[in-house]
Amino acid sequence: MPRRADAPPKTYTACALIIGNEILSGRVQDENVAFLAKGLNEAGIRLREVRVIPDDTDAIVATVNEVRRKFDYVFTTGGIGPTHDDITAECIAEAFAVKLILHPEAKRLLEGHYPPGAVNEARMRMAHMPEGATLLPNPISRAPGFRIDNVYVLAGVPQIMQATFRELSHNLKGGAKMLSRSVSCGLGEGVLAKGLAELQARYNDLDIGSYPYFRRADFGVTLVVRGTDRDRLLTATDEVRMLIRTLGGDPQDGASED
Amino acid sequence: MPRRADAPPKTYTACALIIGNEILSGRVQDENVAFLAKGLNEAGIRLREVRVIPDDTDAIVATVNEVRRKFDYVFTTGGIGPTHDDITAECIAEAFAVKLILHPEAKRLLEGHYPPGAVNEARMRMAHMPEGATLLPNPISRAPGFRIDNVYVLAGVPQIMQATFRELSHNLKGGAKMLSRSVSCGLGEGVLAKGLAELQARYNDLDIGSYPYFRRADFGVTLVVRGTDRDRLLTATDEVRMLIRTLGGDPQDGASED
Repeated sequence: MPRRADAPPKTYTACALIIGNEILSGRVQDENVAFLAKGLNEAGIRLREVRVIPDDTDAIVATVNEVRRKFDYVFTTGGIGPTHDDITAECIAEAFAVKLILHPEAKRLLEGHYPPGAVNEARMRMAHMPEGATLLPNPISRAPGFRIDNVYVLAGVPQIMQATFRELSHNLKGGAKMLSRSVSCGLGEGVLAKGLAELQARYNDLDIGSYPYFRRADFGVTLVVRGTDRDRLLTATDEVRMLIRTLGGDPQDGASED
Repeated sequence: MPRRADAPPKTYTACALIIGNEILSGRVQDENVAFLAKGLNEAGIRLREVRVIPDDTDAIVATVNEVRRKFDYVFTTGGIGPTHDDITAECIAEAFAVKLILHPEAKRLLEGHYPPGAVNEARMRMAHMPEGATLLPNPISRAPGFRIDNVYVLAGVPQIMQATFRELSHNLKGGAKMLSRSVSCGLGEGVLAKGLAELQARYNDLDIGSYPYFRRADFGVTLVVRGTDRDRLLTATDEVRMLIRTLGGDPQDGASED
């Protein structure tokens, strides 16, 4: 059945899978989620869920198979290097029930990057991909990521992940970008809550979030209004500022995304 | 059947649920995962999975019900303030199929914290808990977290979450603490991979991870050895240092956890 002309446009969704014991042990602070969230929004795609899972075959295979069916896109980070704990490629092959093969183009890229003879067996592991995967460029250290169906497999090292994502993001199909405005003030959340709930009810096409902060002696709340319609967003943000003034606060504009 | 005397000791596992649109939009960088990972390890509990999910009833209820059965402990952060987007308590009640009730002790705490008359309807929302929940102290702004069964519901504001966790962590039942040693060097991962895989095979009670880094002109790899037996850990770490020297590198000791 054709979509009715007044049906809402499709919302494209994504899940990020952060694969790595180092995040779960607290040794490393993840930097990839915030980057992916912003980059996906630029492409009109909403990051709807993030999972951080260990370097464990069962966990990776089960999670990939669950989330690739639930979301339009899945982006994994981590586990595609040359060492024994890099098992993402073989897990993705297992999840898709395809063979892990030596990809000729990936092999060529690695052989062009390293000095003659330096592409040992371990490094050649990085040229192994699930059958049917297409390569994703790595402008930094050449060993490519790959895509199979709606799953994009990226490096864990932030610089490489970001460079690869920047190149692939032009080809992602998305919908309307989420725009946002933020306004902060020194009022307590409890003082604002009733008026905010009323505003949220009237602007139910927008998402109004309330985030308290504590910085040294300073405390207050940042109110964030998000939505795809700029006019509605600006009108609602004006109402947020008015609400703050009515309650005796001093609204301070913060970050906005256009 | 009684556990055999030589059975390995139980490993206690945990999942962290980070509830909040602000992390998924990339506006805020999560700080709670790394803190929880380290704090849980101190208590002999392994953080095995993290999920970041939106302020959405269906997502929260379904996720809580899935993970509370899969892990020994679940820790949620976010969504227990006074505003309309704070829906964690009612979602937890729904997940456990119990009523959301006004908790008398939580009510008393709030009334003692705010000036007379300031505990309005919105703030009183923070005294509503799933029936059967026990309070978790909040030494900063009083509005308590709570525990129901194996689910610990904490604030999203890092200072409050951390203060509450510190107080409750003494009562968590855990097993052996995961110890770790790290050694860095300027060698490439591909050079180390074969030797590391051999080491990992010989020390299969330990977990050896390899993490490349790129910092300005400097690059190299950090090797992390983790396990619960200190003697084995130290012996394996010595072997890692030897491997690095054998391959022409200069091992630099990094962070350790005892």
